[in-house]
Amino acid sequence: MSDYEIEDRNRVRRLREKARYDKATVHAVLDAGLVAHVGLVQDGQPFVIPMIYGREEGVLYLHGAKKTRVMQLFGSGAPVCVNVTLLDGLVAARSAFSSSMNYRSVTLFGRAKAIEEESEQLRTLKIISDHAFAGRWEELREPLDSEIRQTGIAALEIESASAKISEGPPDDEDFDYATPVWAGVVPIVNQLGEAEDDPRLLAGVSLSPSIAALQGTRR
Amino acid sequence: MSDYEIEDRNRVRRLREKARYDKATVHAVLDAGLVAHVGLVQDGQPFVIPMIYGREEGVLYLHGAKKTRVMQLFGSGAPVCVNVTLLDGLVAARSAFSSSMNYRSVTLFGRAKAIEEESEQLRTLKIISDHAFAGRWEELREPLDSEIRQTGIAALEIESASAKISEGPPDDEDFDYATPVWAGVVPIVNQLGEAEDDPRLLAGVSLSPSIAALQGTRR
Repeated sequence: MSDYEIEDRNRVRRLREKARYDKATVHAVLDAGLVAHVGLVQDGQPFVIPMIYGREEGVLYLHGAKKTRVMQLFGSGAPVCVNVTLLDGLVAARSAFSSSMNYRSVTLFGRAKAIEEESEQLRTLKIISDHAFAGRWEELREPLDSEIRQTGIAALEIESASAKISEGPPDDEDFDYATPVWAGVVPIVNQLGEAEDDPRLLAGVSLSPSIAALQGTRR
Repeated sequence: MSDYEIEDRNRVRRLREKARYDKATVHAVLDAGLVAHVGLVQDGQPFVIPMIYGREEGVLYLHGAKKTRVMQLFGSGAPVCVNVTLLDGLVAARSAFSSSMNYRSVTLFGRAKAIEEESEQLRTLKIISDHAFAGRWEELREPLDSEIRQTGIAALEIESASAKISEGPPDDEDFDYATPVWAGVVPIVNQLGEAEDDPRLLAGVSLSPSIAALQGTRR
């Protein structure tokens, strides 16, 4: 493990003390998130698309219906920016100016390419499935050929990336600490709740191990 | 209230039955979110920046340090795309292909302009503060002139927008309902936890009403 190279586009300019470029931190934030915000440009117009994803080493895997704008742009080799942000708390400081949030955020840059080879399609679909639903893949039937044909899968190699981590109590101006106003952090807890049965669940079918394991975990 | 106009850039092409263009739905999703993913283009390169925001009617207010890339691009009148996504559940279907998430998501398009007039700066900073911290503004001192001078504030008028709402149980292929595998939804609960005192809190200062009201609420 080492660092992502610092270039102009991924250099953190504001709050530099919160910046991290090491792959361990960048990958840990990616692995904790559930949704990636994918930025692309078409005819000068930016688009931001929320997508499910998976990661392996320095590659993000993304999928979608084959005919969508995002899949076509991926296929064209267009430059891509992805942000994954996890909010951890509201930081209530002694002034509006110093109030903020605690978060873990990663921004990465690269270009995507379509995955066309069938065994690699299956392998990377499993990586995406495992990201949100670890162990679920083995509980389900194999994907059908017709399902794979409808699905576009893209590999986005991370060319550069940065993480920004904000944590801890407010950072107020020195003179504000004398003010008798409450300050602190309100944590944001993202938790998976109790699984709700599908109304069409067959009689006698109990919760799968993969889903039982998800309940109560944090994402 | 009425609908946002449907143009090429905001027309939902996939899963059209989940699309909404009415302002009531679009605004409700924006009001429930805490972070906006803001997409901009600089020299052909997309950037996606997570930002705090506030909303009033069909205008999104965003702020940041004045010298940041995003604030400079806002000032240049560049086209902007914003996505706000709230994840509500993991949808565990009977196949990997039909597994998905429940979510509320809004994508909007427009151009931002900088707010330069001082009373309007104060008014819109309060809108942004109220979005995450309702009632907190009145508990804090007034912003200093020097703080306002460091802050860039932008008004992004929503030119077009769409919401996409996915809810309910899995939507499996007909032939999969005969499979004796568990299916259903694992809810994602985003809840504000118990407020944690700043270690430098003055003795005898108790929780502010605005913060007390946030605890236990969902965002």
